[in-house]
Amino acid sequence: MTAAGRLLVDIHTHVYLPRYASLLRKRTSVPLIRSATTREGTTEERLLILDHEPSGGRPVGAQYWDREEKLKFMDRHGIDVSVVSTANPWLDFLPAPQAHSLASELNNDLEEYCASSPDATAQGYSIKRLYGFGLLPLVPEISTSALLEIVQQISELPHLRGLIMGTRGIGKGLDDEALDPVWAAIEKAGLVIFLHPHYGVDGKAWGDKDNGHVLPLALGFPFETTIAATRLILSGVFDRFPTLRLLLAHSGGALPALSSRLASCIDHDPVVASRLKHDARYYLGRLYLDAVAYGPEELGFVSDTIARSERYISGSSVSPAPDRSSGSKRMLFGTDHPFFPPLSSTEKWKSVVENLESIDAVQGWSQADKDGVRGKNAMELFKLRE
Amino acid sequence: MTAAGRLLVDIHTHVYLPRYASLLRKRTSVPLIRSATTREGTTEERLLILDHEPSGGRPVGAQYWDREEKLKFMDRHGIDVSVVSTANPWLDFLPAPQAHSLASELNNDLEEYCASSPDATAQGYSIKRLYGFGLLPLVPEISTSALLEIVQQISELPHLRGLIMGTRGIGKGLDDEALDPVWAAIEKAGLVIFLHPHYGVDGKAWGDKDNGHVLPLALGFPFETTIAATRLILSGVFDRFPTLRLLLAHSGGALPALSSRLASCIDHDPVVASRLKHDARYYLGRLYLDAVAYGPEELGFVSDTIARSERYISGSSVSPAPDRSSGSKRMLFGTDHPFFPPLSSTEKWKSVVENLESIDAVQGWSQADKDGVRGKNAMELFKLRE
Repeated sequence: MTAAGRLLVDIHTHVYLPRYASLLRKRTSVPLIRSATTREGTTEERLLILDHEPSGGRPVGAQYWDREEKLKFMDRHGIDVSVVSTANPWLDFLPAPQAHSLASELNNDLEEYCASSPDATAQGYSIKRLYGFGLLPLVPEISTSALLEIVQQISELPHLRGLIMGTRGIGKGLDDEALDPVWAAIEKAGLVIFLHPHYGVDGKAWGDKDNGHVLPLALGFPFETTIAATRLILSGVFDRFPTLRLLLAHSGGALPALSSRLASCIDHDPVVASRLKHDARYYLGRLYLDAVAYGPEELGFVSDTIARSERYISGSSVSPAPDRSSGSKRMLFGTDHPFFPPLSSTEKWKSVVENLESIDAVQGWSQADKDGVRGKNAMELFKLRE
Repeated sequence: MTAAGRLLVDIHTHVYLPRYASLLRKRTSVPLIRSATTREGTTEERLLILDHEPSGGRPVGAQYWDREEKLKFMDRHGIDVSVVSTANPWLDFLPAPQAHSLASELNNDLEEYCASSPDATAQGYSIKRLYGFGLLPLVPEISTSALLEIVQQISELPHLRGLIMGTRGIGKGLDDEALDPVWAAIEKAGLVIFLHPHYGVDGKAWGDKDNGHVLPLALGFPFETTIAATRLILSGVFDRFPTLRLLLAHSGGALPALSSRLASCIDHDPVVASRLKHDARYYLGRLYLDAVAYGPEELGFVSDTIARSERYISGSSVSPAPDRSSGSKRMLFGTDHPFFPPLSSTEKWKSVVENLESIDAVQGWSQADKDGVRGKNAMELFKLRE
């Protein structure tokens, strides 16, 4: 039995539920799953989720939809609990009525996926091994009432503790005031929003060379998250919804590293300078960030930018050096499973081991801080107690 | 008299030389300078350097071209020496023959601008107050011989110690093998390349809201630098030209923060995994980065990513925590003058004060490290001794 405070909880882990995978198999434009014959004459399925995807898409198999594979992966890496989310591109490509009905069905599917999962063997608590982020039908022409209905559905499904979303909103991005009733409902329901990229930035930026998926994944994904979170800050969403809980994928991308530059650019721009209640850096302390950054220096720095946020409350005169320890409280372990499988078969996935070793190696984090990032912060944020 | 080891040297400071400003005044498409009548009935000049520039461009005046204004700015902020560069978009918009002849003329102009500048009052050294980065005519259809001729010109002008360039190369970016002879010549001449953004990323990413210049400047600029530097790494330029000296604007943008993610994505991509000699993080220790990041946590983190690079030499088995002190050796103070003027008139510019205070507040940097970043590193990198 693991003490509940020492559980390892993975909050960045994806699934294409069987209903979703079936839909992808029927499609003829991306996103889609197609069957292909390998050089060896066997049949494999390949997933294409991006236009102009290099290498004819990536091979997919049971680890993308089969719950037993998720549990095996968790066992292999010592993960006690996973908070699972549908992988991108979610419902973004569907017409509004279909997105609406499929969101409702997939949320019920995910509830069943979690509710019927095994119990985690945690001392003093009754916990399932699987919880979930629901899906909103955030697509153009969806009605506000349809969105609010699905927020209500998610809030009533006992094993869903948040929802995952991309960056396009209902077509104009997340800084669209039309979303204000949705933020209000999510805030009131106490659900965590997991903000995740899919589109990157315009592919012309990557040039002509064949660099595989490296540029769109290593740079495009975090750039997209950075832009979306920055536009949310600039739009005043965090001033209007002060208890909204937003979790950013990939440790917030480039937002922590560019946050002082952002504050300086705001300071120097008459259009924006007077709009926000606080210095831009204040809002970073309001966010939650996964610990999927692959290096201890990155994690330490990200926790610095969370910790320093109180220096930037409007009117504040405190300016102590930030205490990394306090910044760690809003950071949460994740794996990005089933993406980033190792090229060669190994017992443990290198990407997972790197992220765990990084947490362990952050200078200035106590053992309690590390336990927090490994699981305790997630236990509290997602109220994983029954 | 200031001891030479304590000089304040600004390596990120721009000028539109009079010959360049005259050209911009004659143009009818961006980049251009136009005269406008203000609400008060006076005439002012406005600079437009980007398509769809918000607010009708920015007001410009003598601080953009007049050397006396540069020296006054330096005096006001205690800057002993500036290494001046033409501001973006350089010669990018010109046909090859005109870019070629203008590069040559502007390099001579800048040599004169520096050579006839006052002496800095430094103990034990004879130093001018102004040095420069020359211009290459990096535009489509330019011949390699024209580029090599200009590299040669710059290397022979005694007060030019490097060259500034954007990210487009001769049309296909900086990872274009056609540039290999240029890298070879620059490396051989010992010139420093200052890599600076101009284009950002596709503006559709910024959405419909009026956020002034904030998004393209705070995010677009550093994203562009990050992409260009990453493409250089992926193309193997640093393996082929091991003593090439590249200085990245704005502390490398998001490259330090995304470098472990970059390394992980490379590891997981069969197309790229075997191409490079070292882990991507190794190459960060080969770069020089300005200290224009507006926050002490940012500067400390950037120096960590430089310092840790030796962990990532191929075959290395050392894995000590990085020593920030050693990372500071490749970081150099800059102001970005005459951009980011304060909105209200003040004795000192807030952006400059912030960057100086940030250097002073980095945890783990000794006074010698801070003196290095303030000037001594630049003295060595640009060999500012006569």
